[in-house]
Amino acid sequence: MDLYGRDFICTQDWKVEELMAALELAAQMKRDRFSDRWTSILKYKTFLMFFYNPSVRTRISFEAAATELGGHSQFMTPSAGRFKTQTKAGETIEDAAQVMARYVAGIGIRILEDKVPYYGAGDEMLLEYAKWSNAPIINMADDRFHPCQALADVMGWAEWYGEGPGRPDFEALRGKKFLLSWGSGALARSWCSVQAALLIASRLGMQVTMAHPEGYDLDPEVIQWTKQNCAANQTDFEVVHDPDSGYDGAHIVYSRNWVSAAAYQDGALQKQAEIEKAMAYTGWTANGERMSKTDNAIFTHPMPVDRGSEVTDEVASGPRSAVYDIAENRLHVQKAVMALTMGL
Amino acid sequence: MDLYGRDFICTQDWKVEELMAALELAAQMKRDRFSDRWTSILKYKTFLMFFYNPSVRTRISFEAAATELGGHSQFMTPSAGRFKTQTKAGETIEDAAQVMARYVAGIGIRILEDKVPYYGAGDEMLLEYAKWSNAPIINMADDRFHPCQALADVMGWAEWYGEGPGRPDFEALRGKKFLLSWGSGALARSWCSVQAALLIASRLGMQVTMAHPEGYDLDPEVIQWTKQNCAANQTDFEVVHDPDSGYDGAHIVYSRNWVSAAAYQDGALQKQAEIEKAMAYTGWTANGERMSKTDNAIFTHPMPVDRGSEVTDEVASGPRSAVYDIAENRLHVQKAVMALTMGL
Amino acid sequence: MDLYGRDFICTQDWKVEELMAALELAAQMKRDRFSDRWTSILKYKTFLMFFYNPSVRTRISFEAAATELGGHSQFMTPSAGRFKTQTKAGETIEDAAQVMARYVAGIGIRILEDKVPYYGAGDEMLLEYAKWSNAPIINMADDRFHPCQALADVMGWAEWYGEGPGRPDFEALRGKKFLLSWGSGALARSWCSVQAALLIASRLGMQVTMAHPEGYDLDPEVIQWTKQNCAANQTDFEVVHDPDSGYDGAHIVYSRNWVSAAAYQDGALQKQAEIEKAMAYTGWTANGERMSKTDNAIFTHPMPVDRGSEVTDEVASGPRSAVYDIAENRLHVQKAVMALTMGL
Repeated sequence: MDLYGRDFICTQDWKVEELMAALELAAQMKRDRFSDRWTSILKYKTFLMFFYNPSVRTRISFEAAATELGGHSQFMTPSAGRFKTQTKAGETIEDAAQVMARYVAGIGIRILEDKVPYYGAGDEMLLEYAKWSNAPIINMADDRFHPCQALADVMGWAEWYGEGPGRPDFEALRGKKFLLSWGSGALARSWCSVQAALLIASRLGMQVTMAHPEGYDLDPEVIQWTKQNCAANQTDFEVVHDPDSGYDGAHIVYSRNWVSAAAYQDGALQKQAEIEKAMAYTGWTANGERMSKTDNAIFTHPMPVDRGSEVTDEVASGPRSAVYDIAENRLHVQKAVMALTMGL
Repeated sequence: MDLYGRDFICTQDWKVEELMAALELAAQMKRDRFSDRWTSILKYKTFLMFFYNPSVRTRISFEAAATELGGHSQFMTPSAGRFKTQTKAGETIEDAAQVMARYVAGIGIRILEDKVPYYGAGDEMLLEYAKWSNAPIINMADDRFHPCQALADVMGWAEWYGEGPGRPDFEALRGKKFLLSWGSGALARSWCSVQAALLIASRLGMQVTMAHPEGYDLDPEVIQWTKQNCAANQTDFEVVHDPDSGYDGAHIVYSRNWVSAAAYQDGALQKQAEIEKAMAYTGWTANGERMSKTDNAIFTHPMPVDRGSEVTDEVASGPRSAVYDIAENRLHVQKAVMALTMGL
Repeated sequence: MDLYGRDFICTQDWKVEELMAALELAAQMKRDRFSDRWTSILKYKTFLMFFYNPSVRTRISFEAAATELGGHSQFMTPSAGRFKTQTKAGETIEDAAQVMARYVAGIGIRILEDKVPYYGAGDEMLLEYAKWSNAPIINMADDRFHPCQALADVMGWAEWYGEGPGRPDFEALRGKKFLLSWGSGALARSWCSVQAALLIASRLGMQVTMAHPEGYDLDPEVIQWTKQNCAANQTDFEVVHDPDSGYDGAHIVYSRNWVSAAAYQDGALQKQAEIEKAMAYTGWTANGERMSKTDNAIFTHPMPVDRGSEVTDEVASGPRSAVYDIAENRLHVQKAVMALTMGL
């Protein structure tokens, strides 16, 4: 298996054994974080981080990942450049990507729904960069996918159902019930993390239940892939439209706000309208009572957590909350992906 | 003495022997700047710099400090994140600090008076980060304290009264007269540097004279601690309200603008009002005539210097100006503090 | 030859043999990019990048250069500081430069015409920094010059007329015809790159033809130096005012938009007026037909390329386009200049 030079834009683009190679390496890296097996992999090399949207966790974890691999991450925003747009002269992605690839070992890009005119336009931009760049393109979250979050999620679940930090048991996840529930709140959040979670959970053999209000369907293509993944693993996929029933017997609970399927109008995300629409659905909150109906489920969330809306403090800070471990895993999975795609 | 894992928010939190350990290490580091005794201390490790307020000197010196210790500093501003405020949903410090501490070896924070609703709120935020973060919190200047500036100051004074750069004599400072004078100007400056200087000067056995117009008192608690430090060292503490008399027999002159004790109104620093108020007090300037009344005093200032208002060019660029040496010392003391609190 | 500590603000400040030393080292570095001959040159050292104007290519290439030399580049913008201006109290360059030089091995500065009140003011600022800083000042593009671009350009030309990437033949450039043509477009571009190209082309023995509309003359002093360089090399310098004739027999074609000689009015660059003025001169575009009249010329451009205005896609992406190679060379020449001026 040779992942050198490969882009990582969506987990569906990689074979299961390729994803597992990254996850197993991430676990090794977590067990022995500063081993000289990894600290020279990107020695003197540059990883370019291109943030169309700002970020704290993704920024810190990717920049630290490069440092821990012996290399250096550059932080860049598009405001630094004169890029061509539909209405403004400037540089094409064709030119920008070909030049950047001369300087750097890899390029990470983040672009979310509020920076693009229609759903999918951010992911298309990553594919355009990938077309022209010889250096691997790593998706640091776009409007469709967040594959590094997906790897961190599943690694965390497998640690909790395995032997703890750095000792995940991915087989233990097979057949477990994964509940992805829409969460209340005023944050009008992206589809990328929850879609990435659906894809990885179904890929690794979990039962999948989605719970959301009517109108909060996700990308039909992602749902289709999720169903195919479940079918291949002979697991169930179901959707419910109430905030309670999905918890029954769940092993992993993911409660997170996201925008409705009608979020884009007139060439832009209607964030304020989405916030108002979401206000009609209070009470979609992971709380102790709901968690008590699960099979001693762990609570998972990509953070930042909107406490009080998506989840109560009791659950988010409780003994079955995996959120900090999963956040930490971002570092380890990103180191693994960078090492495999950019290290020789 | 083990300082590993300790926060550095105010010099009063550290014992004198702990401060001296940092200062002596800083002097060694200055004498032998790129020795391999230090260049691997933070190897592959990340120091996170979190700037609520922008900065040049602090930014460059902290980032260079990490580089010279073999590590890497990340530059971050809060605009990158979605933090909870009184009026906006977002991430709590509880969550942010616990996650950051998974990624990094230490966290530096700068937050000054113009970013907070009342005096002390910035320092409280650092204490909140320190409560939740396993990684040490280093104060890169808050609305109350600037402990790294204090160490750089006293190291510089001890070099000038010792054997020169890298060869400070801290005993030589005992009993010397330290004049902290308010300075004219339109900059409405923070209390943090001057309060930090009062605390360190009194702690290390100096006589302390403060000179300022009526109404320009500093934090009563800091003044109380300064008096206690003086009492413990059997030195004098005095306050005068004219711009001349304090210079008599002084050994170290610090002339610097700061805002009045009435600077906060209606939940915000009233910067423009402070500038106008300060205009009534022209002539509080360290000049050659005043310096001639001292005991051949050195001139100290944390920079940036407001030339012509706080001090004349003649003094700031004169043969007894320690300002560049002290600025350089920021690097060395920060390296020492980082090595002691973050290096194993 | 000892270039340690030297500033690099304009190629005219360096002797030809000094420029050649940088170029030859750059070629070595390109042939053997991560050789341990270079990867420790800036070990634990800081290169400070000070961007008054934003940039992508310059930023990435300088930051990667420091990384590949084992050091670290800091990214800084003046908004971080409180600098003295004609109307605002703040820090002087005298103070800022002397302090920065205590922390860092070298300082790169970019300041372009839209940030200064008159032509040349940006370059004057670099000279002021150079006056006070002990650390070398590297011009990362100012309103007059872009010397690193010039080195990258000529290295690229010599590779195309030599034995390919990393194997430039500078002698092969002697007597070749260099066409610098004004280019159409709405970008109101700087004089710095084109002036730097005139100086380096004439310095290394090329025939120089400039083509531009009436009123688009460049800096008379630069033209004077170019003429002197040509005279010293016994080559021709000519100016034409039509978009076609210059192509006849050219070996290197450089088509680029720039502002007119009347661009500054009332203490500021009149960007919008310049864009409107330029609209009168459509058709100054390097296209296939014009290139067919050359002596199989290569196409050169410092990027970003304004495709469709300065040059057609056919030419910019064609088999004789050197633009990506030249962009890559930015990295190598900057590594060479940094190694020579900052490495011991």
